[in-house]
Order: sequence, then C-alpha cells, then structure tokens
Amino acid sequence: MRRALELAERGPARGVNPRVGCVILSPDGDVLAEGWHRGAGTAHAEVDALSRLAPGAARGATAVVTLEPCNHVGRTGPCAQALVDAGVARVVYGVDDPGRHSAGGAATLAHAGIDVSRGVLADEVEAFLEDWLFATRERRPRVTLKWASSLDGRVAAADGTSRWITGPEARRDVHRRRAMADAIAVGTGTVLADDPALTARDDDGALLDDQPIPVVFGRRAIPADAAVLRHPLEPITLAGVELADDLEQLQRRGIRSLFVEGGPTLASAFLEAGLADELLVYVAPAVVGGPRTAIGDIGVGTIADVQRFHFTDLVRLGDDLLVVARPGTAHPETTTRERV
Amino acid sequence: MRRALELAERGPARGVNPRVGCVILSPDGDVLAEGWHRGAGTAHAEVDALSRLAPGAARGATAVVTLEPCNHVGRTGPCAQALVDAGVARVVYGVDDPGRHSAGGAATLAHAGIDVSRGVLADEVEAFLEDWLFATRERRPRVTLKWASSLDGRVAAADGTSRWITGPEARRDVHRRRAMADAIAVGTGTVLADDPALTARDDDGALLDDQPIPVVFGRRAIPADAAVLRHPLEPITLAGVELADDLEQLQRRGIRSLFVEGGPTLASAFLEAGLADELLVYVAPAVVGGPRTAIGDIGVGTIADVQRFHFTDLVRLGDDLLVVARPGTAHPETTTRERV
Repeated sequence: MRRALELAERGPARGVNPRVGCVILSPDGDVLAEGWHRGAGTAHAEVDALSRLAPGAARGATAVVTLEPCNHVGRTGPCAQALVDAGVARVVYGVDDPGRHSAGGAATLAHAGIDVSRGVLADEVEAFLEDWLFATRERRPRVTLKWASSLDGRVAAADGTSRWITGPEARRDVHRRRAMADAIAVGTGTVLADDPALTARDDDGALLDDQPIPVVFGRRAIPADAAVLRHPLEPITLAGVELADDLEQLQRRGIRSLFVEGGPTLASAFLEAGLADELLVYVAPAVVGGPRTAIGDIGVGTIADVQRFHFTDLVRLGDDLLVVARPGTAHPETTTRERV
Repeated sequence: MRRALELAERGPARGVNPRVGCVILSPDGDVLAEGWHRGAGTAHAEVDALSRLAPGAARGATAVVTLEPCNHVGRTGPCAQALVDAGVARVVYGVDDPGRHSAGGAATLAHAGIDVSRGVLADEVEAFLEDWLFATRERRPRVTLKWASSLDGRVAAADGTSRWITGPEARRDVHRRRAMADAIAVGTGTVLADDPALTARDDDGALLDDQPIPVVFGRRAIPADAAVLRHPLEPITLAGVELADDLEQLQRRGIRSLFVEGGPTLASAFLEAGLADELLVYVAPAVVGGPRTAIGDIGVGTIADVQRFHFTDLVRLGDDLLVVARPGTAHPETTTRERV
C-alpha cells in the first residue's frame, strides 16, 4: 500500500479526480504491474496497471489500491468491473470512495466473489487525499479563510490605509499558501479597493510555479484594467448570494481547496454561512482601533451563538504571529498550560 | 551584592519606598553587619545595618548596597550622610537612585572622600526593582493593559453577553497577575455593566493573600451596592479626564504597577494617551463579529500612526492564547521564522 501511495503521488494534484495508485501482486507476493492515475480523461490507476499485463496475467492476483475501485461509467469504464474481468482474486484498498456516482465498487467486487479488504493505511491515504475527500464528501471545496489584522482585529486605519500591517515573513507565508490552494477568492469590494493580482509570488514578485485560480464573488463589475484579469489563469466570477451553491459549482469544476482572502464582507459572509473550515489569522503586534474591523457582523446576537474554533497551530513569522484554527472545541488533552 | 539583594527581598514589595539591602564588610572582607529596609517610616537598609554595629566599628569598612544611598531628609535621615558619619571608606552599589529628592547620594559620598563604585550586578538590581524604578523615573505606575477577546477582537456579542469568552486557565492567569499588581483599574462603565469585585481569587473564589488596590476611573457615581465597595482595600476613584495626572497621583500614593482591566473605553483611553507599557491579550479561539470591539477609537487616522508593539511572550492557556506585547518594534534577532 505504501508503494501504491508513492505511485499515486505521481499524479496531478489538481482537478476533479483524485490521485490514486495501484500495485498488482502475484499470489506469491511478487509485483506484476504498477499503475497510477494521470488526471481526468486518462485511465484510472487499476486499469493503468492492468494494461501493463498480458491478457490473463492478473488471474488470481491481488490488487492493492489506495482508494476504493470506482463503480462509475464515465469517460473510462468502471475499475471494479475491470478487476472482475481480469480475474483478480483479492482487492485491498485504503479509503472508501465517497463519490456520489463512483462509490459502490467494493460491493460490485464482493458480489463477483472477490475477497475485499478495506482500511489498509487508511489514515495515510486520508491525509494524502484530504482536500479531495473533503470536497467529494461535502460537495464543496475545503475553505481556508485568511485575514491579517492588528492585535485588536483591525485591517486598516480609519482612512482605509493598510499597507503593511503585517511584515514580509507573513506575506511570504501567504504566497506559499496561495500556491498550494486550487483557487483564491476575494469579493468585488476588494477588487475595486485594492486591485489585487491574486497570484502566488516569490519575494521578487516573480510568479511561483503553482497558481491558484482567481475567483471573484459579488455582483459589481470587474474593471477592465483590473490586475486579476491579467492573472495567468482565467478568473471565475460568482454572485456570492448563495455561497453554498457557488461552492458546489466550484467543486464540480474540480476545485478542492479555496483560499478566501477577503475583504471583511466576504470573510464575514463565509463565517455567517458556517463555511470556514480553517482560519489563518496573521496578527501584527500593533493596535489600530477605529471602524475597519477584519470581521463585521456574522449574525451572532448572544454569546452562546459564537463560532467556536480551536487553535491547531501558532507560528511566529518575523514580528507577526500566525494563528491557525479549525472549527469545533479543542481536544481535552490540549487544556494543560503549554508554553508556545 | 548578591547577599544584599537577598536581604532586600525581605522587605515589603509594595509602597512608596524600594526594597533595598545592605552588607557592611570589614577591610578584610568579613561581614560586619547586614540590613534591609522594612518600608516607609522605618530605617533605610544602610542605617539598619549600621545600627547593628558598635560606634566606630564601621570605620574603614565597605558598604555594599543594592541602590544608591539616598541623599534625602525625609522621615529618616539621608543614608549618604550616615555612611559618611560612620567613617566607611568605600561604598559599592548597584543602580542609581532615580528619585527627584533622594538622588545625589553618590556625589555626597565622593565629596566626603569615600571611594564609590556603581553598577555592580546592575542588571539584576534593575530587574528586581523594575516596577519601582519605572514608577520613580516616569513618575507614574507601570501600566499593564489587559483585555480578553475573540480572534476577531470582540469582547462580547451584540447583546452585551460575554461570560465566558476565555476559559478557566485564562481566568486563573488573570487572577494571579491581579495579585502581583499594586492596583487594578476599571472604568465606571464596567462597574455599572459588570459589577466586578476587582479582587484576586483562587479557583474556589477565595481571596488570594495579595490584593491589588481597586481604582475606578470616571465621573459617574459608583452604586452603593457595588461589589468593588466590598473589596478588602478601599477603592481609589479618579476622574479619568487627564490620565497622566491621575497616574502621577497614584505613583505618589506608592502604586508602582497598575493592571488596567477595562472596559473598552478605559483601555482605548490608555492606548490613545500612549500610556500602555505592556499589553496582555487573552485570545479565545472564537469568532463573534458585531459592534462590541475590545478596543474602540484610539485616534489613529492613517496606518503610519498605528501603535507598534512587539510580542514578548505567547502562552497557551487551555484552549486560549495569551499574547504579551510591549511598546516599540521588535529586536532584529526575532525576525527569523520561529515556531511557537
């Protein structure tokens, strides 16, 4: 299974399909063939591996696959049926396929008399496919909400000036995380006020290899000379009225992870809708006061309704502090006094 | 000098006078006498030590004192003159006395032909007398500004409910720090809204041994049944219009350290006046939004005018985070990426 995971890593990290690896073993445990998925429209890992064998060579063999073989007739045939047709005796896989159309492969295999084992190295496969599994299960991208504020939660001074509340190390960290996300989102207010490029750049301003797809929420028009229109990837525009629907649309386009950069209106809307799966708060050691809060109204009338998170990471970035938090209360073991 | 510091620690930690220790050594280095100051109205450390010797026994001796011997005729005579009269040959001390009336003892000693050395273990004496030295130099108490907020800088939900944004470990830490402060301050708005006891208590609500003097800023009357009026120490009330004047008054009353607990109006006033020497921000992993910000307007119109601090400590307290910051930008050596 560890070898299957290595093979899976060769696949493309983005797109609608997951990265999957497959190893075909003889009854004696010898490796007969290996395969991995190279992205939508190409052979799935199991079929890729089987294609490297002579007809009949997989009879009685064991297929080790990171993800439950699919049951889905898409652009390629269902893998479960391919394994049945090839005559494999046993299938071992890591994690169930949560896809609406693709799940059920294990049942198909078992029905055909194949010995099926699931859950092997499941934790590692889960971690490896975290964003894809999340997006497939929840039918929306995993949302990371990022803001940078002073210690008192302000993003700008009263006159709107904000560059730079946080320092170069914090900005570098943001660009690194932009590059890891499938897409990056802002509201039209931020496009109009700050004209962000929404690219992932290095310290010299050069583009990093991986770029997130820019997504602009809101109904106001994007100016023709907006920097986001010069992004290497074509921007997606969404109304931002029904965020859940918008996110489902993004997931259907293969976006597994969305990095929401703001501004305050969009960030507050995501919080109010309960659609923040991770918070990244870059806190500068400054106090600003005044009206420009990072988060506006999120519909919390009384203290019992606050949105509870728990800190998962605290990182010093130069003079600043990055606070990472995820929804829900903390695990009990973190309640001791711990120096960070 | 280390022994003199140990003696100094026996004195009372509060009051207008500093804790001072003194050791009298023979020319051969034998300890002839030791002394320390027991608080305003009692003998100073040098006089306390000399009083343990027969007349003439200190002739030619060396006096080691933590603080520059005073030059001040108050309720007790000036220590510098007492050392001259006793015929000591040499005086060694740690830190200069910054007092307006008491400074100048070293000059008096030198003028009398005594060999004077200063700066011995100065850093340790500085640290030991930090609050007193600060209060004496600045003619005001050292101000610690404390607030507890959500990750987005809110102290309460829209309806004003706030108990408890932070957890029991954070509250315990607050009570421990209250007990270490000479005085604790709130505004009348907080007295009227929250009716705080302003005592330092343990987990069971029992009073800790050390209690800070309660100080209430503002011109509104304190209700006759307010909890603060049942505080073991009599509250001090101040108008809160000219904070600098109010603080000078507190310093004259022997208050070296003031723990400002809020609410937002008082905290913002201290920040706007540039009178926050330390920030303690207890950050809960929650998002609240809405109008109840921990800090209101502090007169920052544009981003160049923000109040810059630097993080001196980051402590996990249960589910919460305590951020400690002091004024001014950070030292250059902290600009590397450091995991906390």
